Amino acid sequence: MEKNITVILGDGIGPEVTEQSIKILNAIGDQFGHKFKYDYQLMGAIAIDETGNPLPDATIESCLKSDAVLFGAIGHPKYDNDPNAKVRPEQGLLKIRKSLQLFANIRPITTYSALQHLSPLKQERLDGADFVIFRELTGGIYFGEKKINEEKTVASDLCEYSRPEIERIAHLAFQYAQKPERRKKLTLVDKANVLETSRLWRKVVQEIAAQYPDVKVDYMFVDNASMQIIINPKQFDVVLTENMFGDIISDEASVLSGSLGLLPSSSVGTGTALFEPIHGSYPQAAGKDIANPIGSILSAAMMLDYFEMNEEATLVRNAVAWTLAHGFVTQDIDAENNYGTSVIGELIKDFV
Amino acid sequence: MEKNITVILGDGIGPEVTEQSIKILNAIGDQFGHKFKYDYQLMGAIAIDETGNPLPDATIESCLKSDAVLFGAIGHPKYDNDPNAKVRPEQGLLKIRKSLQLFANIRPITTYSALQHLSPLKQERLDGADFVIFRELTGGIYFGEKKINEEKTVASDLCEYSRPEIERIAHLAFQYAQKPERRKKLTLVDKANVLETSRLWRKVVQEIAAQYPDVKVDYMFVDNASMQIIINPKQFDVVLTENMFGDIISDEASVLSGSLGLLPSSSVGTGTALFEPIHGSYPQAAGKDIANPIGSILSAAMMLDYFEMNEEATLVRNAVAWTLAHGFVTQDIDAENNYGTSVIGELIKDFV
Ligand SMILES: CC(C)[C@H](C(=O)O)[C@@H](O)C(=O)O
Ligand SMILES: CC(C)[C@H](C(=O)O)[C@@H](O)C(=O)O
Repeated sequence: MEKNITVILGDGIGPEVTEQSIKILNAIGDQFGHKFKYDYQLMGAIAIDETGNPLPDATIESCLKSDAVLFGAIGHPKYDNDPNAKVRPEQGLLKIRKSLQLFANIRPITTYSALQHLSPLKQERLDGADFVIFRELTGGIYFGEKKINEEKTVASDLCEYSRPEIERIAHLAFQYAQKPERRKKLTLVDKANVLETSRLWRKVVQEIAAQYPDVKVDYMFVDNASMQIIINPKQFDVVLTENMFGDIISDEASVLSGSLGLLPSSSVGTGTALFEPIHGSYPQAAGKDIANPIGSILSAAMMLDYFEMNEEATLVRNAVAWTLAHGFVTQDIDAENNYGTSVIGELIKDFV
Repeated sequence: MEKNITVILGDGIGPEVTEQSIKILNAIGDQFGHKFKYDYQLMGAIAIDETGNPLPDATIESCLKSDAVLFGAIGHPKYDNDPNAKVRPEQGLLKIRKSLQLFANIRPITTYSALQHLSPLKQERLDGADFVIFRELTGGIYFGEKKINEEKTVASDLCEYSRPEIERIAHLAFQYAQKPERRKKLTLVDKANVLETSRLWRKVVQEIAAQYPDVKVDYMFVDNASMQIIINPKQFDVVLTENMFGDIISDEASVLSGSLGLLPSSSVGTGTALFEPIHGSYPQAAGKDIANPIGSILSAAMMLDYFEMNEEATLVRNAVAWTLAHGFVTQDIDAENNYGTSVIGELIKDFV
């Protein structure tokens, strides 16, 4: 098979972790007779520096034409503490989500027994935790109208949701909950006791639930969810939520595994899908060959699954599990005995 | 001294936990020669049942005239899964916050060494964690315009903040960070890389920081904060944030102590202050004499501090610490050896 992949290296550690995934994809290609063709494009702070635009049109065009997007990370501290900055790296990320209509961000939360000592949670809380968060990604307060008056004394952000926006991701999440490997439970996280948008979410999900009678549905307020994720993460199977709540609780949940560096995500929608590690651009580590490439590599594995190359994806995941089990890890996992980003990439490449 | 206290028992376990606090306040009054006068008023599901209104005017009037409000909890499951309910218990809570202009909710997060085995976090993460969250309580998306179109296909909630709303709570938080017992660090939690309101928060806090040169300020995105609270809670001293983020992260943080039942809060503003445990109405436990009264009792202690009865407050806190250290605890703390709500209240009353 031939697949065209737009590669967006981005900022900070984005380039060096993504490079490992490319090596591994090439090895997979050689072995299974696939041809992966890469088109490198800009987004984020680097795109601002080079073109003035956090998401140049050329990047969008490439993405729209390609079979998938492999993305590293974006963000640079020089923009974070400047509330007056007009152009920001994050605008690129928000715009690409909108342009590709990536309405569902899917984040599997898994724990590795070899790494349980790294988790801030006690082992007995973690054992058996395995859930997937479906975060709505193109609506809500992220994309609603933003205002600031001329005197800069009153600001506002509008959170808006329409029925179709809720329906399409809800169907995806219910279908996912029905998969043989899932436990057929869906938890909607909202704040229906306060927000009108949450009440619409709850209503739509209640209606749609009738079409999936084998899936047990429950409803949880976001403040309670933020506790339950730590108190009893095993109770979750598929979690569905809106954009902002998903941002917060999926990052919170990612802590369970012991290292952010390990976790992948996919964002899917009506067009090309995008695959990215959940970690940020981690600028302090950039160029030092210390970043954990596993989040990116497992994102590439999710991309292989998306291409229906399931055997290939499984091979990559097995290779990752093998390195973790044998102590071939980066500094975030073991401060004493560790290997560089590129060595880990090389080992996984050799394994597949 | 004489103090008029409006008591709002509310729903679920609200009445039985608040009753313990009253017993203890009376004992304190006897011992120190204070007269606490109570005016019982309605709010929540019980107020809807009895008057059709989740916050009757009589309750507001009593609160406005009194020196402080001692509140239990509200909420009833019959309202939670009905997205069409017109009247909800929570409306009472939101309205009382607005009516009394309770713009700052203050939640100390402390851990008890006697209870560390209950925390989902590993001991080494918890040791030394001690911070206070300042949550804005009368603005933001909770109180912005809510809309739903006639066809019920599009809903929206507006998040709005003005400079004065941010300034008043920011000053409180900075002053708190300056207290001798604090570590002079303030962390603003926002989402300034996406939200206009967050950028206004960041800007105003940056300006105000100049007036408190001895306080070190840092800025953290809410998604990162939701991780940091679990990964490294010790890094926080005073946390300042807007309403919705505060709801989520303060509940998340409350998990650290091992039991929600222990944690108090105060809400202060331009008028009468309000004191309440952070737990909810926990209807499954209502009337069973199993609820933990400590959250309410420590809220009463915060009220004593607010009355500048610091010796009295310390006595109550010492009494609580004594019961915890000696295994006089409710079922949430020890499933095997435990005591009833009223026994714990009695023991603390006898101690003071
Ligand atoms: C960088 C930021 C805009 C982004 C978000 O909040 O969506 C990030 O936190 C994420 O979760 O992908
Ligand atoms: C009951 C609800 C409206 C309330 C809130 O979200 O403010 C509660 O969760 C709290 O934190 O006091």
